[in-house]
Amino acid sequence: MSLLADLTAQVLAFRDERDWAQFHTLRNLIVSLNLEAGELLELTQWKNDTEMAALASNAEAHAALCDECADVLIYLLLIADRAGIDLEAAARAKLARNAERYPVETSYGSSRKYSATADGKCRHGP
Amino acid sequence: MSLLADLTAQVLAFRDERDWAQFHTLRNLIVSLNLEAGELLELTQWKNDTEMAALASNAEAHAALCDECADVLIYLLLIADRAGIDLEAAARAKLARNAERYPVETSYGSSRKYSATADGKCRHGP
Amino acid sequence: MSLLADLTAQVLAFRDERDWAQFHTLRNLIVSLNLEAGELLELTQWKNDTEMAALASNAEAHAALCDECADVLIYLLLIADRAGIDLEAAARAKLARNAERYPVETSYGSSRKYSATADGKCRHGP
Amino acid sequence: MSLLADLTAQVLAFRDERDWAQFHTLRNLIVSLNLEAGELLELTQWKNDTEMAALASNAEAHAALCDECADVLIYLLLIADRAGIDLEAAARAKLARNAERYPVETSYGSSRKYSATADGKCRHGP
Repeated sequence: MSLLADLTAQVLAFRDERDWAQFHTLRNLIVSLNLEAGELLELTQWKNDTEMAALASNAEAHAALCDECADVLIYLLLIADRAGIDLEAAARAKLARNAERYPVETSYGSSRKYSATADGKCRHGP
Repeated sequence: MSLLADLTAQVLAFRDERDWAQFHTLRNLIVSLNLEAGELLELTQWKNDTEMAALASNAEAHAALCDECADVLIYLLLIADRAGIDLEAAARAKLARNAERYPVETSYGSSRKYSATADGKCRHGP
Repeated sequence: MSLLADLTAQVLAFRDERDWAQFHTLRNLIVSLNLEAGELLELTQWKNDTEMAALASNAEAHAALCDECADVLIYLLLIADRAGIDLEAAARAKLARNAERYPVETSYGSSRKYSATADGKCRHGP
Repeated sequence: MSLLADLTAQVLAFRDERDWAQFHTLRNLIVSLNLEAGELLELTQWKNDTEMAALASNAEAHAALCDECADVLIYLLLIADRAGIDLEAAARAKLARNAERYPVETSYGSSRKYSATADGKCRHGP
């Protein structure tokens, strides 16, 4: 059993022991993932670049980063389960598409590529 | 090598081939994860509950959900790498804490538990 | 003195009495506005369409909506001040552009217009 | 007629000419405000503090900031209208509460106050 499948099974067992599947609509899970992403963003609030560079080496901040990253992963697993998404396959497919979108020769060392929208799609970069 | 370690290695190789590590500060990665979470949220925009229930079974919408979930996972792996976070351990630790926070007997079938802040911490539920 | 100018003056006086301008970089203010928008989103979490329809008529929820909308407005005024933006002029200009983008004859009663990206720009609708 | 009331009337007229009130549920408007806040955040993506400090003086970036701030304000006016919120009163009431929460003597020049949660409420600061 793959790691993601194993973690997903653990998350679903937690959910079902509490009869919480009824609250886990795709919308609720996506909104919740956004709120957890926001808690991660909150850890950067009011910090300048120097303070950000030191953040991960502060024990309390590191624990908070772990905590919020875990919440994002847990909701991502729940969304994938609810929407019938194979996260590993989706990530590998996306990396393959990004490799075409950002050829090494034209992308090397350039952050400009990040905001390219050649294909008309809103994109924030890989 | 675990799946997450293997996916992370692939993401880091993609990044380093393009010399993009210089753009991947913890702040930039957290902001980017928030923007990708927002693209997931955008897939729910203007949809009522009935439309949301049908979303994942629409081929085009399913592909878009895969795409955005992949982006969220990719940035989450980059954040974990940058901040020195073991995502699997963090998720298992969080599930253990949530099990204490939400005892089955008091949480069963109740969405009220979701907004509990007994410990004074901002929480959006497991 | 216009209302927005008057409110802005009050917000700036509050900030300066506390010597907080040093924390109000454009980035910090934009991140903070996103976090407050997230608190507004949190008020919708776990609620279905029926519960959402009743939300504003619940006294406690109405007070929370007021509170979060106020926070969003306060940060928007601070961003506009920091970036030298005339919010009223910007809003009127945007409404004029939207009127061209969404002609009544083709937009009437259609939510499809909301996701149109004819101009290649990411758009979520007016 | 106050400025906010006048702007709101213009936004509602735009909406009603297109029969769009049917799409403007409180949830849809709050999600849309979050997406527009995200577009504002996107303007900060991949930028370090030095680049951020120069952002507002770049003509193209300034126009984009105006555009996104206008979108946030327009959705905020629509939310206030839908939820029966007096934005001006809400902002003045919030500033009064913040003045109590952050006494000048203890808050002067301190960013620590920003993350205070003495009252147990999630807060990101004024």
